[in-house]
Amino acid sequence: MTGSLGHVETQRVVLASPDDPLRLRGGGRLDHVEVAYETYGELSPARDNAVFICHALTGDAHAAGLHVGSKKRGWWDNLIGPGKPVDTDQFFVISANLLGGCSGTTGPLSTDPATGAPYCLGFPMLHMSDLVAVHRRLVAHLGIERLHAAVGGSLGGMQVLQWVIDGPGALDRAVLVAASSRLSAENIAFSAIGREAIMSDPDFCNGRYVEQGVFPWRGQKVARMMAHVTYVSAQSLETKFGHRRRSRGDAWTLAPDYEVEHYLQHQGQVFLDRFDALSYLYLTRLLDYFDPFADPGTAEALRSTATRFQLTSFDSDWRFDSTQSARMAAQLEELGVAVDWAELASPHGHDSFLLQPQGYHERIAEFLG
Amino acid sequence: MTGSLGHVETQRVVLASPDDPLRLRGGGRLDHVEVAYETYGELSPARDNAVFICHALTGDAHAAGLHVGSKKRGWWDNLIGPGKPVDTDQFFVISANLLGGCSGTTGPLSTDPATGAPYCLGFPMLHMSDLVAVHRRLVAHLGIERLHAAVGGSLGGMQVLQWVIDGPGALDRAVLVAASSRLSAENIAFSAIGREAIMSDPDFCNGRYVEQGVFPWRGQKVARMMAHVTYVSAQSLETKFGHRRRSRGDAWTLAPDYEVEHYLQHQGQVFLDRFDALSYLYLTRLLDYFDPFADPGTAEALRSTATRFQLTSFDSDWRFDSTQSARMAAQLEELGVAVDWAELASPHGHDSFLLQPQGYHERIAEFLG
Repeated sequence: MTGSLGHVETQRVVLASPDDPLRLRGGGRLDHVEVAYETYGELSPARDNAVFICHALTGDAHAAGLHVGSKKRGWWDNLIGPGKPVDTDQFFVISANLLGGCSGTTGPLSTDPATGAPYCLGFPMLHMSDLVAVHRRLVAHLGIERLHAAVGGSLGGMQVLQWVIDGPGALDRAVLVAASSRLSAENIAFSAIGREAIMSDPDFCNGRYVEQGVFPWRGQKVARMMAHVTYVSAQSLETKFGHRRRSRGDAWTLAPDYEVEHYLQHQGQVFLDRFDALSYLYLTRLLDYFDPFADPGTAEALRSTATRFQLTSFDSDWRFDSTQSARMAAQLEELGVAVDWAELASPHGHDSFLLQPQGYHERIAEFLG
Repeated sequence: MTGSLGHVETQRVVLASPDDPLRLRGGGRLDHVEVAYETYGELSPARDNAVFICHALTGDAHAAGLHVGSKKRGWWDNLIGPGKPVDTDQFFVISANLLGGCSGTTGPLSTDPATGAPYCLGFPMLHMSDLVAVHRRLVAHLGIERLHAAVGGSLGGMQVLQWVIDGPGALDRAVLVAASSRLSAENIAFSAIGREAIMSDPDFCNGRYVEQGVFPWRGQKVARMMAHVTYVSAQSLETKFGHRRRSRGDAWTLAPDYEVEHYLQHQGQVFLDRFDALSYLYLTRLLDYFDPFADPGTAEALRSTATRFQLTSFDSDWRFDSTQSARMAAQLEELGVAVDWAELASPHGHDSFLLQPQGYHERIAEFLG
């Protein structure tokens, strides 16, 4: 029977220390890495039923269920739970905040042990491999040798691909939704404009806004409003808002008036409460640089893997369009990797991966089952 | 023989005064309206060969030829000139800056005669009809009763539609390129985000930046970078820039690195020198509110017109996509208006109207001829 998880808790664990630092792919190291994570379901005695959830750019560890005192369910609650496609009656589900994030895992606002102050722009540039390395440490910490699956959408799907490259024996099944192995120029362009908005905000203070007691809210709001438009489809905006205004009569104004404007204002505003500007810079930038098939070791690693891939893209997703999944599928196939790619119909653009377009959840359930 | 115009000059004329104010569609009036314009070619003795060029959002009166001391040809120089589709050997061509603009025609930075200071946000909200009214005054001032044609792309095309509605006998031929009679929700969204970037810039100073000796360059740069991406196609960005970086080696940075980022930085930067933030606000907002078929008088006006319409859209234009031209063509046809609409193939997105995709210039030449 399908149900929803009840109360869940975010836990924290320290996974790197001066004695066991996290050495970064681009050089440098982190002497202290803390990770925020949640688990749902029970680990089997054989420790072979673990499914790792990889979140998207602005996600967090709270993927399913409810925190005590909150009515807001986790961001992938429709996918994860008893009897759901990622079935917590069957799987031990792990969801962790990313390195570089701002929801409990070490990131740019964490304290640099070397200075006692926040890293800010002193935080090292991250490679997708660094994010994977931290989550592999978490998996090991939980006593798991091999994952049944890793499941991720958008950035999360890209992390799943890196996970297999860095550990060809680390998982049985890789589920990538609305992902890419190399961003398009247009995709990079939108991220770059968002970063420009944040970094040119006077309250960015060269990254030291926390110490100044300010926040580059103007820039981050604009970045989010723009990103949001790219995460949905023109059709979905048209259906939802059309040309409808909130004000009545003939009085025209430069202030928000059309319903779509009020909606974007709201989206921009709520984002300020839940995300940090430096994390936004670091994690978007990591996506731009993600290009694993350009790495010499990638082909060899993938040729050796027994991991089976499932790729899903959506026909109205123009930020991570289907051609990118198609290209990735072809590259994997060429290396002898088992891959099943499908483009599903959905009017909701990139955000489709968070929703339930027809055939999507069924497809994941079948692949994991 | 096809050639290019030589030196041209921008002229100015005062077209509204306290005795003959411009009464605005939304109420209020302007007691002083000056217009910057250029003309190319010779007016025929019968005064029946005039073609009016309507510029897009950030255009100006300098549509063709060269200003003395400059090497930069007018923005539509490929279309206008001796032997070109808008043939200056045949037509008397008029190109004027829009009301609300910042290139010589009265706009928000002009002096309000009532206060002796710039209007700033005290400038009235403009209706497309107000822009047409000013240009109709210019046509009358030049001693022309009826235009052979009005030709416009994007906002310019929308102005041409309003021109026919406001003066069903004012022109013989209406050429609308990459235009719309009602913006999509997504189109409004992008403009709204650009305005948010400008108005939330601390140097916007509630519109009084000129008096403060500052300029909201951060916000305007972000607005332009974003708008630029929407004026081109994903394919054209991919072809031009792909995943190419300017820096070599492995050093990653939050600063611009990919070629597409440098390109957008440049586009944002040069825009600051040539356009004003308040004009950007007023003219984008006017587009949002443009919805002539919702006006009760529009059908009657169009039923009575003998003006022939030519509509052209481009298959890769996603900011003003072809469905908008198709809808407009259907609405015109339903009213018995002669309309020829074609969607042309072009990889260059909305900016195609400034370029020469196959069949485009030929089509305009034939229609005007």
